[in-house]
Amino acid sequence: MQIYKAPLEDMRFLLEALGYEEVARLKNYADFDLDTVMAILEENAKFCTNEMLPLNRVGDVEGVKFHPEDASVTTAPGFKELYKKFSEAGMLSLSQTAEYGGGGAPYVVGMILSEMSTSTNKSFTMCPGLTHGLIDALLHHGAEDLKKAYLPKLISGEWTGTMCLTEPQCGTDLGLIKSKATPTPDGDGYLLTGTKIWITFGEHDMADNIVHLVLARLPDAPEGIKGISLFLVPKFTLDGKRNAIYCGGLEHKMGIHASPTCVMNMEDARGWLVGEPHKGMRAMFTMMNSARLGVGMEGVALSEIAYQTALAFAKDRRQSRSLNPARQDAHAAADNILVHPDVRRMLLNVRASNEAMRALGYFVAKHHDLSLHHEDPQVREESDDLVGLLTPIIKSFFTERGFLNVSDALQMMGGAGYTQDWSVEQYLRDLRIAMLYEGTNHVQALDLVGRKLPRNMGRSFMKFSSLITDFLRENKENPALAEFLTPLKETSKKLNQVTMSLSETAMADPEMVGAVASNYLNLFAYTALAYMWCLQLKAAVQRGDKFGQTKIKTARFFFRNLLPEVDALVQCIAAGKDTVMDFEAGEF
Amino acid sequence: MQIYKAPLEDMRFLLEALGYEEVARLKNYADFDLDTVMAILEENAKFCTNEMLPLNRVGDVEGVKFHPEDASVTTAPGFKELYKKFSEAGMLSLSQTAEYGGGGAPYVVGMILSEMSTSTNKSFTMCPGLTHGLIDALLHHGAEDLKKAYLPKLISGEWTGTMCLTEPQCGTDLGLIKSKATPTPDGDGYLLTGTKIWITFGEHDMADNIVHLVLARLPDAPEGIKGISLFLVPKFTLDGKRNAIYCGGLEHKMGIHASPTCVMNMEDARGWLVGEPHKGMRAMFTMMNSARLGVGMEGVALSEIAYQTALAFAKDRRQSRSLNPARQDAHAAADNILVHPDVRRMLLNVRASNEAMRALGYFVAKHHDLSLHHEDPQVREESDDLVGLLTPIIKSFFTERGFLNVSDALQMMGGAGYTQDWSVEQYLRDLRIAMLYEGTNHVQALDLVGRKLPRNMGRSFMKFSSLITDFLRENKENPALAEFLTPLKETSKKLNQVTMSLSETAMADPEMVGAVASNYLNLFAYTALAYMWCLQLKAAVQRGDKFGQTKIKTARFFFRNLLPEVDALVQCIAAGKDTVMDFEAGEF
Repeated sequence: MQIYKAPLEDMRFLLEALGYEEVARLKNYADFDLDTVMAILEENAKFCTNEMLPLNRVGDVEGVKFHPEDASVTTAPGFKELYKKFSEAGMLSLSQTAEYGGGGAPYVVGMILSEMSTSTNKSFTMCPGLTHGLIDALLHHGAEDLKKAYLPKLISGEWTGTMCLTEPQCGTDLGLIKSKATPTPDGDGYLLTGTKIWITFGEHDMADNIVHLVLARLPDAPEGIKGISLFLVPKFTLDGKRNAIYCGGLEHKMGIHASPTCVMNMEDARGWLVGEPHKGMRAMFTMMNSARLGVGMEGVALSEIAYQTALAFAKDRRQSRSLNPARQDAHAAADNILVHPDVRRMLLNVRASNEAMRALGYFVAKHHDLSLHHEDPQVREESDDLVGLLTPIIKSFFTERGFLNVSDALQMMGGAGYTQDWSVEQYLRDLRIAMLYEGTNHVQALDLVGRKLPRNMGRSFMKFSSLITDFLRENKENPALAEFLTPLKETSKKLNQVTMSLSETAMADPEMVGAVASNYLNLFAYTALAYMWCLQLKAAVQRGDKFGQTKIKTARFFFRNLLPEVDALVQCIAAGKDTVMDFEAGEF
Repeated sequence: MQIYKAPLEDMRFLLEALGYEEVARLKNYADFDLDTVMAILEENAKFCTNEMLPLNRVGDVEGVKFHPEDASVTTAPGFKELYKKFSEAGMLSLSQTAEYGGGGAPYVVGMILSEMSTSTNKSFTMCPGLTHGLIDALLHHGAEDLKKAYLPKLISGEWTGTMCLTEPQCGTDLGLIKSKATPTPDGDGYLLTGTKIWITFGEHDMADNIVHLVLARLPDAPEGIKGISLFLVPKFTLDGKRNAIYCGGLEHKMGIHASPTCVMNMEDARGWLVGEPHKGMRAMFTMMNSARLGVGMEGVALSEIAYQTALAFAKDRRQSRSLNPARQDAHAAADNILVHPDVRRMLLNVRASNEAMRALGYFVAKHHDLSLHHEDPQVREESDDLVGLLTPIIKSFFTERGFLNVSDALQMMGGAGYTQDWSVEQYLRDLRIAMLYEGTNHVQALDLVGRKLPRNMGRSFMKFSSLITDFLRENKENPALAEFLTPLKETSKKLNQVTMSLSETAMADPEMVGAVASNYLNLFAYTALAYMWCLQLKAAVQRGDKFGQTKIKTARFFFRNLLPEVDALVQCIAAGKDTVMDFEAGEF
């Protein structure tokens, strides 16, 4: 049984509470006031529930098939048709640039579409997700002729895109890439040779052409990460010829069975340079930052559908008596399990974390829109800082917490959760990869402490910290918020202290910073979520209606049952590196 | 790639550190001194690695097949032969009573066998695990003729056993059972009718007969849990006739694919009463308590093999540079990933929790042996108290932590962990059920706070608490232990305070106790593990060798990186029930 109704009420509430009107005021988005956006989302929500969700389990059970005789890959029944419908419904193009045929909607709207799409069919959604990444990279770094030739077909859904980074000897450490690119004799582009692995939708039958973005080395490339260039390598070149990039096999995985994870072999495949020689990582990061936000939101998306499924189960199931005689149903032999405090605790673990994560996702997406299109360069810079700072937190914390959330939803359902009947076990398997791809979660933590914190003398962190300080000051007279402002203030203070102390150590002992980075990222995440709850609470109190009341209760659960984790994290960070580095390698 | 070498050194160390000599001194176990035990374990460890492990992935991939035409179930290739070899190797019978053909070894030795067996093939091991449960229940509650007829064949492995509790309308709440038993016209036994679900190895082809223990109601049964009786219902009755208990289908599950989870239909199936009428739950609990310890140890077993697999991967993989220039390998382009602090952190999360969990498992198993066979009734009673008190903690905490451990091992391996190539993803799927079956983890928490704590005016808890107090007093002059005794003392104090406060509330507000029970159980578990580390540390310091040094480092990681969780738990418990119970049902 698969259950999903897009949480449109929460989405609208968050857009309002987080100041979507600032986005709607940008002149690029004049056509996208909140009512219009909600009308679009409502239509697309129907598409997700009616078209995407029914194929989600089909994809899991049928999976994808590799045919060695012609190196082709067949996707699960219905997926090819779905990609066509998905594109026609505007799901692919809505937030893409109008210049090349997109709908021109704000990034934050695209994020919401993607959340709904991922909730209802994560494997499938990875294909448009990667295509979006390719579009971004081409838009920002591609030559004019490449853009004109490729962008319209990618945005229309006729063609799809991939990212080809990993090789057998290198995943995290892309400096070890061996794939080679040599100039063609005819001077038109390059010939690429090498093997790429883990290529999502590297081969499939859902579109007429597949456009790969490939990292490789030019003949004169410096060693390591500074000698990597980026190339566009299509399956079919523009003259219709089959290019020498072929799928060599598929990985067999825990989940996302409907998403082909390909080995891709290139033997003198023709490619064209994107961006400058040896500056491929810069272009790739454009693509990756956006992809990382998308991966983080997978945690929110699957937490949401798992919550809805578990709740539907709970509403139906009767088992045992309430421990409170006043709540016992005299007309039945057992009570509905929603009376049991632990069932509620598990549901609220999911919901209280997820509504704050969704808020943080939209908050960052809004700042992404501001960073691109605001008239004031100061605003653009500050927003860009916030996006950079919070992206690794979204990727890492949301996927880890999302995994625990889906596990909690499964747990609440007892044995039923472990069967394929309710699909929650599929959501758990499908989500597990999100902690690994687009940079493992620890890579995100290193990005946070090693790049994002120190950049511009800590300017981004100071901006984030000042947002909280400002909020605390502006709302200190609001009695309805008092119980939440104190823990926000305390948590923020702890984060500031730890950050200060880390910055002091960073230069002298990077290994220590590496040892505590993952716990630090989580501490940061809890602080950011507490802030997100306070932004929501302010709006909830103003509403004063039933919806607002429930928000306040949900926030209270967060502050009293989830936020205490920060104290454990602070202690773990204080343990430093000795407890791990004192071991000799042979002692493990 | 599947990797397992039984951790025999740690097993021996723990048996010594936890006082196995008290077991060896019991007159029933005169033949089982430590050297003998270790020799047996070494042989059986080879069996696990050589015979069980190679079939583990086969079982996952091939699964089991149901044939509706004759209601039969085929297990994966090799499983039938494995059950025969398993029995012949003594894996099944070693710790069973010699009176009916068993090896007569201590329970703690059986637990270690079962750990190794589960590490190498969890799905398979569930069959002997349930057979052991049936043997226990028959031994304690069966009539003499039933024992004589069934026990020798169950212990020899010719026949296997099941537990039939759950029905579609009841899992946790067995008071809702509907299956009926009516006396046969011929006066020989009863005729049972009803449907049971989730029956592990309810039907299979590994043995000649399957003996079911079934909960059902007699015609004159009182309503609810006090009207349940226990029956033995064989697939083939002793006269060789096929009995009317048939498999109606299999569940499709996230994991344990090689273990058939059956719907069992009875229509006037012939059965015989075990124990007294309407007292079936009492007999079933004999079986369940032992089964719960076994399920808890599944967390240890799969943490172990996941650790070993991740470590083998880590030793082979080179990726990125050490953050500490002194550790960089000048002869290679990248360093072995064991230099990275976060890789170590993940490995130590697993190891530092798992070595303490293993210790607690053996500690309880030792007390189980003492409770059965010690000459002094006072010792028997105290040991029985400890077993009862700690069993729900082992079942719940070990399975939850084990799941997180396997997830950490998977994470450490990057994308490789998500593929089927290394099987860690299988271990994660296989282990997830352990948090659900044999009573969900929250049922364990309710058992702890609702039954085990208050029983005999809190005698069990006082005994446990006094063990820690005694240890602290006896070792306060040991300078090598000082850094660990302080946090043990503090944690124990926190547990005592919370326990006191809970006991005071329990009568007045059971719903509050239900709301915090799961967090309370985890707080208790951390305290018990800290105590287990101190017992190990004392022995490690005495050894003073390399092995002992590594133990001390591992303990230090536990105290500084895992134990801080207690502070978060104490705060969550203090939040009480309001944050969950304030919600109206419609607000979820």
